Amino acid sequence: MNAEIISIGNEILGGNIVDTNANYIVKKLKEINLNVQHISAVGDEEKEIITQLKEAYQRSQIIITTGGLGPTEDDITFQSVARTFQLNLVKYPEAERHMVERISKIGVFVSPSNLKQSFLPEGSTCIINPYGTAPAMILEKEDRVIISLPGVPLEMKNLLSEQIIPFLQKKFPNLEHLQSRIIRTSGLGESNLNDMIKDFILSNQRLNVGIYASPEDIQIQLNALSKTPEETKNILDKATEQLKVLLGDYIFGYNDESLEGVIGNLLKRKNLTLAVAESCTGGMLGGAITAVPGSSDYFKGGIISYDGEIKENLLGVPRSILINFGQVSEPTARAMAEGVRKMCNSDLSLSITGIAGPAGGSPEKPVGLVYIALADNEQVLVQKHQFHNDRQAIRLRSVRRALNMLRLYLIKG
Amino acid sequence: MNAEIISIGNEILGGNIVDTNANYIVKKLKEINLNVQHISAVGDEEKEIITQLKEAYQRSQIIITTGGLGPTEDDITFQSVARTFQLNLVKYPEAERHMVERISKIGVFVSPSNLKQSFLPEGSTCIINPYGTAPAMILEKEDRVIISLPGVPLEMKNLLSEQIIPFLQKKFPNLEHLQSRIIRTSGLGESNLNDMIKDFILSNQRLNVGIYASPEDIQIQLNALSKTPEETKNILDKATEQLKVLLGDYIFGYNDESLEGVIGNLLKRKNLTLAVAESCTGGMLGGAITAVPGSSDYFKGGIISYDGEIKENLLGVPRSILINFGQVSEPTARAMAEGVRKMCNSDLSLSITGIAGPAGGSPEKPVGLVYIALADNEQVLVQKHQFHNDRQAIRLRSVRRALNMLRLYLIKG
Repeated sequence: MNAEIISIGNEILGGNIVDTNANYIVKKLKEINLNVQHISAVGDEEKEIITQLKEAYQRSQIIITTGGLGPTEDDITFQSVARTFQLNLVKYPEAERHMVERISKIGVFVSPSNLKQSFLPEGSTCIINPYGTAPAMILEKEDRVIISLPGVPLEMKNLLSEQIIPFLQKKFPNLEHLQSRIIRTSGLGESNLNDMIKDFILSNQRLNVGIYASPEDIQIQLNALSKTPEETKNILDKATEQLKVLLGDYIFGYNDESLEGVIGNLLKRKNLTLAVAESCTGGMLGGAITAVPGSSDYFKGGIISYDGEIKENLLGVPRSILINFGQVSEPTARAMAEGVRKMCNSDLSLSITGIAGPAGGSPEKPVGLVYIALADNEQVLVQKHQFHNDRQAIRLRSVRRALNMLRLYLIKG
Repeated sequence: MNAEIISIGNEILGGNIVDTNANYIVKKLKEINLNVQHISAVGDEEKEIITQLKEAYQRSQIIITTGGLGPTEDDITFQSVARTFQLNLVKYPEAERHMVERISKIGVFVSPSNLKQSFLPEGSTCIINPYGTAPAMILEKEDRVIISLPGVPLEMKNLLSEQIIPFLQKKFPNLEHLQSRIIRTSGLGESNLNDMIKDFILSNQRLNVGIYASPEDIQIQLNALSKTPEETKNILDKATEQLKVLLGDYIFGYNDESLEGVIGNLLKRKNLTLAVAESCTGGMLGGAITAVPGSSDYFKGGIISYDGEIKENLLGVPRSILINFGQVSEPTARAMAEGVRKMCNSDLSLSITGIAGPAGGSPEKPVGLVYIALADNEQVLVQKHQFHNDRQAIRLRSVRRALNMLRLYLIKG
């Protein structure tokens, strides 16, 4: 069984937006083992849309369109679907009711163009959209299904997950069950990770394994497919256990977990507080830590010591260290961590000092040289890193390495 | 004249990557006034590719494919193009030479699968690829052009700009000249901006105007089209002057400029230094300011006063203010800005204190309430904002508003 996606809208062909909807739908359908064999984007022109729908109808059993459900003149998806299959557009009172209710709530008058949205192709199922005014539509015809979803990503995503996927699973009970799990790692490069799990990938034929790198971490995506949800879960559980043995503490979390969230939980559990002293990252480490709701439970704050003067005056880094070793050095990182821990009266502290570039490097201290320190009430640990890439990537990496250093400290301590 | 894009590769249909190539090509073609009327993505299957090429050949004069030029078995673009138009694949010695040279340089043996890449459809023009081993191809047939580019974004982009666009301009000398300019604004909502320039849009028929909102700013994109580059530039210059009158100081920059970059230039020009005190943004403001290379010329650093204790101990916010008005209040924002200016010994300072949520709100101080203060050696200015949206959006907005407040201060002072 094959699926096909048609993105409708001049904004895609005009280059104004990247069509991320198609990619999202592909991934969601993959979870129920439905393969997309064709993706296309057409403008808001009836002739184009009809041609595309006809071609799609010939080759694909499930056709999903996005976009063109709005109230304006150029939104013509329902009308084009109706023309393609020679159906009338008829008024769906439940769609009208929902729209009037929703629009009145925000205190605006319902315009005639809004009412257009409640006319759907005859015989189709109207899907009320709790996230917007435009209803979605399912049209079943012979052994095929045509589904029209709004183009607004949030509305499309919610309707797909909550209404369309369950509908497809019910209509096609033979769809195999696919389940994915993401294993998140920190501290390893992509190729090192690849080498470490090469044999694992080869020996797990029932798994589809992908490795993806993002600025935040490197992820291993496991996709397992089988007849029942229980069996799929077993395959994933077994694979996860194998990866735990292979990768140990490089794994920091699963699925939607983030490094800053994991650290937050560890700090809360151990009842420890944290402060930061940042030089080249200029506040990004604090920004990442406070992205977690409730981080005020453990994060006290910190000092952005971008200037040497602030390292000295606010963090108490001795002038002799700054003169003899420089602002980017092991002793400075150490003194920054010690200083901010005292100033903020926290249990733990992290410090980062480095050369983010593009200027400021030297043969002894090239761009990308970063020192990260972690202090508790007994000791200061310091790591030296040499990153490559551009300014922003070096800063992002530094933040991730600092968070990971803290994570490893917390799970070992 | 119409163009069409076909993205070839299982990685798109498999959901592993978002097809950003198509969007890039659309934008580049738009610059020479070539409209893309159709975008599609197909997998690495010959039958699919041939069907798509045939459909494209019927409706579009210029067809650009990306992907499927690599050395492996599943890379079959040249072969599919040849089949579609009943051409032989023939060896292009210059392609082979380039590949052997390139591969030898990195000290690897040339494999038979590499040699496959030097076989192109008979009669096509081979485009040597300085950024990789796979050559690209231009096939001219009747009044149409089929162009095959690699799928690796960097290679595709460079070949498109350096070889394909010039080729198209030479082949079709009647293509009009399109030029774009982005006007960047801060401090206005999208619908307010829309209202302010509605008449401008209606009265400028030779301009295509788009309004786009990003987390960083709201942009007005102007696209002008005419017979000569000079005329196009004139149209844009005139429109820019009109917008300057309409929007005044809401405009902060053009094209690739950023708010933090503009502020950096203003601070440098006025020889002023800056420090920040951040509560709910946790360091994000400092992180944004230091994203600009060379920001150490004017940014001294700051204090992340996430905890009330730090506001009191490090910033010197009087305990009476914290008790009587609370951490999120006008007097606290004011005292934070004053405190950090003194502590960091800077000319100017910014402070942010607010409730980012999701918890911590109350009827009097709801989630999204944010105070921003700016201090110099004579005065402290304070703004009160009520943002909506989620935690991260509230934090991002706060940073942007703080930067814009500083910008307006600097251009007025």
